[in-house]
Amino acid sequence: MDFSEAVEIKILHFGLRKLKPTQILVFGFAALILVGGILLNLPSASKSGQSIGFLNALFTSTSAVCVTGLVVVDTQTQFSTFGQIVIMCLIQMGGLGIMTMATLIFLLLGKKITLRERIVMQEALNQSTLSGLVKLTRHILLTTFIFEGIGAILLSIRFTQIYGISKGIYYGVFHAVSAFNNAGFDLIGGFKNFTPFVEDPIINGVIMGLIIFGGLGFTVIHDLLLKRNFKHLSLHSKVVITMTLLLLVSGFITFYCLEYSNLKTLGNLSPTGKILAAAFQSVTARTAGFNTLNLSDLTMPSKYFTIFLMFIGASPASTGGGIKTSTFAIIIMMIYTILASKEDVEIYQRRVPMDNIFKAVVIGVIALLLVFTSSFLLTITEKADFLSILFETTSAFGTVGLTLGITTELTSIGKIIIILTMFAGRVGPLTLAMALGSRINKAMIRFPEERILVG
Amino acid sequence: MDFSEAVEIKILHFGLRKLKPTQILVFGFAALILVGGILLNLPSASKSGQSIGFLNALFTSTSAVCVTGLVVVDTQTQFSTFGQIVIMCLIQMGGLGIMTMATLIFLLLGKKITLRERIVMQEALNQSTLSGLVKLTRHILLTTFIFEGIGAILLSIRFTQIYGISKGIYYGVFHAVSAFNNAGFDLIGGFKNFTPFVEDPIINGVIMGLIIFGGLGFTVIHDLLLKRNFKHLSLHSKVVITMTLLLLVSGFITFYCLEYSNLKTLGNLSPTGKILAAAFQSVTARTAGFNTLNLSDLTMPSKYFTIFLMFIGASPASTGGGIKTSTFAIIIMMIYTILASKEDVEIYQRRVPMDNIFKAVVIGVIALLLVFTSSFLLTITEKADFLSILFETTSAFGTVGLTLGITTELTSIGKIIIILTMFAGRVGPLTLAMALGSRINKAMIRFPEERILVG
Ligand SMILES: [K+]
Ligand SMILES: [K+]
Repeated sequence: MDFSEAVEIKILHFGLRKLKPTQILVFGFAALILVGGILLNLPSASKSGQSIGFLNALFTSTSAVCVTGLVVVDTQTQFSTFGQIVIMCLIQMGGLGIMTMATLIFLLLGKKITLRERIVMQEALNQSTLSGLVKLTRHILLTTFIFEGIGAILLSIRFTQIYGISKGIYYGVFHAVSAFNNAGFDLIGGFKNFTPFVEDPIINGVIMGLIIFGGLGFTVIHDLLLKRNFKHLSLHSKVVITMTLLLLVSGFITFYCLEYSNLKTLGNLSPTGKILAAAFQSVTARTAGFNTLNLSDLTMPSKYFTIFLMFIGASPASTGGGIKTSTFAIIIMMIYTILASKEDVEIYQRRVPMDNIFKAVVIGVIALLLVFTSSFLLTITEKADFLSILFETTSAFGTVGLTLGITTELTSIGKIIIILTMFAGRVGPLTLAMALGSRINKAMIRFPEERILVG
Repeated sequence: MDFSEAVEIKILHFGLRKLKPTQILVFGFAALILVGGILLNLPSASKSGQSIGFLNALFTSTSAVCVTGLVVVDTQTQFSTFGQIVIMCLIQMGGLGIMTMATLIFLLLGKKITLRERIVMQEALNQSTLSGLVKLTRHILLTTFIFEGIGAILLSIRFTQIYGISKGIYYGVFHAVSAFNNAGFDLIGGFKNFTPFVEDPIINGVIMGLIIFGGLGFTVIHDLLLKRNFKHLSLHSKVVITMTLLLLVSGFITFYCLEYSNLKTLGNLSPTGKILAAAFQSVTARTAGFNTLNLSDLTMPSKYFTIFLMFIGASPASTGGGIKTSTFAIIIMMIYTILASKEDVEIYQRRVPMDNIFKAVVIGVIALLLVFTSSFLLTITEKADFLSILFETTSAFGTVGLTLGITTELTSIGKIIIILTMFAGRVGPLTLAMALGSRINKAMIRFPEERILVG
């Protein structure tokens, strides 16, 4: 890095400092949600010509911007084409916003960027200069539109066969955007989501592909496109890919076994249908929120396992939510390290820095406390059963959008709690990661050490 | 510490090394449970003269040794006096065993004992020599019997008024032992536990006192008796006392508010009765397992909050279970530290060492995974509702003994899962704490650092 570059980085830093990224993120999202709520509240956003009411509009807008997919009204039945396009735009802006912000924050504001990472960054994005910033955004936009474009074409071909040309193309575009952004909104109607297509290999395949790539995160996709060899990938990409595969496979096996003889879900499907449906459930649970099975028909252990997957979620700098695959991986490796009496948390022959481990733990614990608080409040305000409440809250936190059916029956306070949980689940971990990236205040006085017994 | 003392400590260390403390603990407890199971399986252990069957006997024995209090048969109705005395002995041995082992392990095997702690230890127990070991055990026995003795006398006075002299004294002793050891076993009959005494100030007061002191842990009790001034206490004692008070008060307020107008619980009680019942519920939830209210009558948020309290549990080196108050305190302070961008986790003007924090986190995460796995398996094997299953599992892990009523309806596999969960919940955290106390294996090769994105 020569001198001029260094100066430019400084300018860049100061520029972003003035804007206070945490504020951009929180207020930007809140403003977008508010605008969306106002638009969706308009009578013209509804098919019936009657407004759905501001709270419902705000709920829908939050769900779209936070790419969650929980719905209090059916998107196809309730909203006019104008309303539906507003929702699609909110999804796209929410998804892109998070992906861009997250990538920028992680790559540019991370205080302790190693030489190796800086080289990877420069190689990959050439964004150590201000022009790099523009380039980065362009890269992200391009990647998004390529994936969504391919998805839309493939889906349109299939949907045209069912709905005719114009509606088929419209459905192709809407669902490609919704799937790549892990939003989970659908236009099938009657809260059915993709259940009519449970055995359709094309729709299942395309949607799963879009969800998985959208959930990997931009940095990983870029790393993959550039290196094409697992060995040369960054540690982050390796961890994300390994964990994603592990979760997808274990989810598939779990759902396949638990639902095999459940006549309401896999029981009556063809052998291929069983495999497709179990795979789709595994893919969708970790943040996408589409469903080809009716979730309330699942067995109790499947519902519980879905909660576990929803809590973990997708990968950082992606369109997905949850505590993130890498966070979970670090926590698991930390436990292994301590149980094996090793000194360093090592993954793929690299040492994970101490503050990196701490961040992971803090994100995990805060997420737990958030889900606990939110579900605790709902047990006071709602009449639903406990499993449905815990499911709903985790779904909102992980911006998943799956539900056991209580979303439409929420009280007004319940709706507000879920709105806040979606918002916190979406901007929270990122804001936290940012705040944690800031320089640590060196204490003036260091107190003496003293141990506390635990366990 | 002079030379001869140093030699003696070395001898002591080697002596305990040969015995492998983790093995003593695990096999000792398993053997005690087995012997208890064989005894309780005898026809003479039952009032009816018919054996309750080995699985039920093993369940009861595990519940007694692990001082849990979950019961598949009613202790008073089912067991003969012989059977009941076996149970009381198992409780006493289980409780003392854990308290002694834990204190020994924490005080003697802790590898990184600071000078200050060593001084505190010597002051308090003078156990840096082999004779100190005997003294320590004697101290623990003495403390236990003083508390249980006072409790037994007070309870006997009250019970004599109800049950007559001989039964009154027997009940006084049994329940004092059960309460100080946080066991939760009762002889009231018909699974009623202390519900008939919900408004009885003496029984409530004595039982609560025994539970609280039993749950503080021997080191804290000793520290308290010796110093009598909060300022001079060890950091550990300060943290345990503060956290215990905070949890007791917040539990009381929560239950008082949530149950105030619930006609099945506090609703029909007198103003004093309401306060007593809410206080008792707050005290019992964090590991004792007695109940003056029927738990299945509680509102859903109260049940959920009870799960939270059961998971946290009592304090280290006590008769109680859970992840422990100090573990929870460290995790919360760690989050505060990181959110406040501070460098050190500071409590009461002391720095908490890094490995201490790691231990706390590892214990918390492993406990979560244990409760998750165990309850997940139960959702497969049992027909009960989800909240009851999560409640039962957390109760077993935290060796609490409260139930929403499904213990007696468990399938055979369900009973085995709960037996294993009680055992893991009892010896697990301690074994873990021990294993974590062992010297860390310095790696031969240290890999280069590389960061992973989280959140
Ligand atoms: K979603
Ligand atoms: K107990």
